[in-house]
Amino acid sequence: MINTIFGHRSIRKFRNEGIDPEMLNTILEAGSRASNTGNMQVYSIIATTDEGLKQELHQLHFKQQMVLDAPVHLTFCVDIERFNVWCKLRNANPGYDNFLWFCNATIDAVLASQNCALAAESFGLGICYLGTTLYNADKIIELLKIPKGVFPITAVVLGYPEEIPDLTDRLPIQAIVHNQVFEPYTETDINSFYREKENLPQTHILIQQNGTENLAQIFTDKRYKKNDNEMFSQKLIETIKKQGLM
Amino acid sequence: MINTIFGHRSIRKFRNEGIDPEMLNTILEAGSRASNTGNMQVYSIIATTDEGLKQELHQLHFKQQMVLDAPVHLTFCVDIERFNVWCKLRNANPGYDNFLWFCNATIDAVLASQNCALAAESFGLGICYLGTTLYNADKIIELLKIPKGVFPITAVVLGYPEEIPDLTDRLPIQAIVHNQVFEPYTETDINSFYREKENLPQTHILIQQNGTENLAQIFTDKRYKKNDNEMFSQKLIETIKKQGLM
Repeated sequence: MINTIFGHRSIRKFRNEGIDPEMLNTILEAGSRASNTGNMQVYSIIATTDEGLKQELHQLHFKQQMVLDAPVHLTFCVDIERFNVWCKLRNANPGYDNFLWFCNATIDAVLASQNCALAAESFGLGICYLGTTLYNADKIIELLKIPKGVFPITAVVLGYPEEIPDLTDRLPIQAIVHNQVFEPYTETDINSFYREKENLPQTHILIQQNGTENLAQIFTDKRYKKNDNEMFSQKLIETIKKQGLM
Repeated sequence: MINTIFGHRSIRKFRNEGIDPEMLNTILEAGSRASNTGNMQVYSIIATTDEGLKQELHQLHFKQQMVLDAPVHLTFCVDIERFNVWCKLRNANPGYDNFLWFCNATIDAVLASQNCALAAESFGLGICYLGTTLYNADKIIELLKIPKGVFPITAVVLGYPEEIPDLTDRLPIQAIVHNQVFEPYTETDINSFYREKENLPQTHILIQQNGTENLAQIFTDKRYKKNDNEMFSQKLIETIKKQGLM
């Protein structure tokens, strides 16, 4: 278990080879064993292998090549619809079409996704999370015929890895963990937390390629810009409302 | 790995025995190896072992006994503050104080939490998630001195188990997984998905104890009521806004 967790790297190149349906089934069952809110399991998983659908998902996930190449595409969804339908069939009045349950179900869906990811990795498969799910949620909803009460929160592609990239760096654990209560970040802390990352050889290359003063500006000026973030936030809130979850 | 995942049960009774700091450190490092948005690691973990703080957390988590008994209490937080402080020190203009990044960071924090939970379980520890984190987030923020830009999204208590409860039931995997696209829920589906759960011996006992017609009404009329959900949703949105994340 520990080796699987510490051996995780995102895989972006896959062999042209499908996943055995029984193995995939075990991976999905692993997802369903995760902790969840009140054992209500307010999430669902859409497993897409169809080439035509994958080509369209590839477009919606900003044309990342691995979305086309990976044999299996799992979309993890907030899902209060199953529970709602059950309640209505049982003369019970559900009250889950609100933001609290959007958050509860997001946590459920993400816990299930990580169980699936780790189960897959323990079987020698490679995985990559698609954060792009939130950016084009409205169009993914349309493509995957997702009804009201359901919302795609993240996605994971999986398959046999064609590459074994180096582990990516992480901030030192002291940067992430606070002792007893939250400890405010001082300038000295921040300089120390980011020192290693800022001094990696690939960081220097990236700065040169991007023509910025430093690494932080690559994030703020190139990769995740304020205006884009605000535009996508607005779109995201509207889509969640449209799905009846806020 | 697979055995750890399939052996998961929430533990609510703990032995009076602390966790070795080195083991705890490995568990936290396991958290930091999880996938995260753009390798920005916009989350943090507050590790609380102090008895006085645990007593107050116990109150805020609706007096669940295990919150008092478990030696370690991990609060997983959305955290754009570390990244913001770094950007400002580097003459970069961050734009992450919005809902898109609240969602990105929620996913990051929850992925890290599940790595920690599974690492702990692989070491023979027991864990329990505290969904109650979202209900009293405002008071947890106060108690744990959580600043703007940071928000407690979930918590996990851990320690050596004093019990090994039965595995809890799950819906059949066909209830959770959709083939290619989302498949709408028919009445026949729902009856079949919930049949096993509705026929468990403990379900019959619960219905009798609660004086409801059926299991669904226990959720809607007793455990997670519409009015409460709406009130907590409102409070949650206000708190997220107050933390500058929406």
